[in-house]
Amino acid sequence: MLVIGDEILSGRTRDANMHHLAGRLTEIGIDLCEVRIVSDHAPAIIAAVQALSVEYDHVFTSGGIGPTHDDITADCIAAAFGDTIDVRDDARALLQAHYDRSGQELNEARLRMARIPARATLIDNPVSTAPGFSIRNVHVMAGVPMVFQAMVASVLPTLTGGAPLLSRTLEVIRGEGDIAGPLGAFAADHPDLSVGSYPFQRNGVYGANLVIRGADQAAVEAAFARLQDLFAA
Amino acid sequence: MLVIGDEILSGRTRDANMHHLAGRLTEIGIDLCEVRIVSDHAPAIIAAVQALSVEYDHVFTSGGIGPTHDDITADCIAAAFGDTIDVRDDARALLQAHYDRSGQELNEARLRMARIPARATLIDNPVSTAPGFSIRNVHVMAGVPMVFQAMVASVLPTLTGGAPLLSRTLEVIRGEGDIAGPLGAFAADHPDLSVGSYPFQRNGVYGANLVIRGADQAAVEAAFARLQDLFAA
Repeated sequence: MLVIGDEILSGRTRDANMHHLAGRLTEIGIDLCEVRIVSDHAPAIIAAVQALSVEYDHVFTSGGIGPTHDDITADCIAAAFGDTIDVRDDARALLQAHYDRSGQELNEARLRMARIPARATLIDNPVSTAPGFSIRNVHVMAGVPMVFQAMVASVLPTLTGGAPLLSRTLEVIRGEGDIAGPLGAFAADHPDLSVGSYPFQRNGVYGANLVIRGADQAAVEAAFARLQDLFAA
Repeated sequence: MLVIGDEILSGRTRDANMHHLAGRLTEIGIDLCEVRIVSDHAPAIIAAVQALSVEYDHVFTSGGIGPTHDDITADCIAAAFGDTIDVRDDARALLQAHYDRSGQELNEARLRMARIPARATLIDNPVSTAPGFSIRNVHVMAGVPMVFQAMVASVLPTLTGGAPLLSRTLEVIRGEGDIAGPLGAFAADHPDLSVGSYPFQRNGVYGANLVIRGADQAAVEAAFARLQDLFAA
């Protein structure tokens, strides 16, 4: 995933889209392998899109497709793939109908949102109409969380996921330092499962959430039962 | 910044450290240019550390320095820089004193937290003792937010920032499509300032926060006054 926006990097806004996408992808069995967050700076966006597009099966971007001067994502994506970009008739028709319904003018700024690379296919935006788009393996979506989430819901059914990743979590009220030895041996005994330890401190008490993840439900459940035995109070 | 951890990418945990660091860096005039989030997978960590270390003045990492088998960050950092790594006497002495005080055993798992690359300098951890470390331009810190924040507070005074970036924000209750034209012209008239537009929708009303950023307070204030005039209701 690529998150685009100065407001995230300055600490002004706390990104919510990464967490949303991560959860949705996990549900349908697609691993989110890497996230990059870059500023509204064309060379940074172009380089990141190219690198991620080569490295991964799918790339999801968030941000920078609105009507203002700092919304440069669509042009950067076109540049990254050597595609042409201009106001497209299909996108313009969507916007025209939307603004006609609301009695607002489809002015030059709003028309920027119909700038779509020539070879892209549109992503439906049931919230505010202005579409996202997919080109090659890159899915370009809005930064406003409600719109991003609606676009994710439009895109995900078109992708082929693996088996959903199942997980079971055991909360253990002991410091990680006390459990790390046996937990490491447990992980070594279960090479087909991912075994993670996520420490916390709550009211001065140290504990850890031990998470087993895998695609095979029976294997996850059996390992979870062994983990409960291992760390029974 | 490099955030390390499967739990972020799976959507299990929502990262808080990036937002904290972004805010603190902005306060002292350091630009956060890029964030990457990678899994607990050695090749991914090593490649990201090497790439970011070459590209930027400073790199901050979060996560993967605890006592469990999936805490592989320290070893990856050593590998990334061709340094050796083992339990270091200075770090062991800190942990020994800490566990002696609390009457707990400094067992093999906890001793993992004293594994520090040979050429690194330690980062103070006033919360739970186990240190972070800096090597070359990379600052390696814990993922638990309270500990991460304490380590950031230890590291930042050692860095040289630029002038703090100042910002003023104007909330405008008009759709971005209505303001994008004049706002673009305004931005073009102020090439030394950064002018951003961050749309929102609240109770069905569209608006945008217009943010002016710059290092020169007088310039920011003068531009903000002009922006208020431009979008006076």
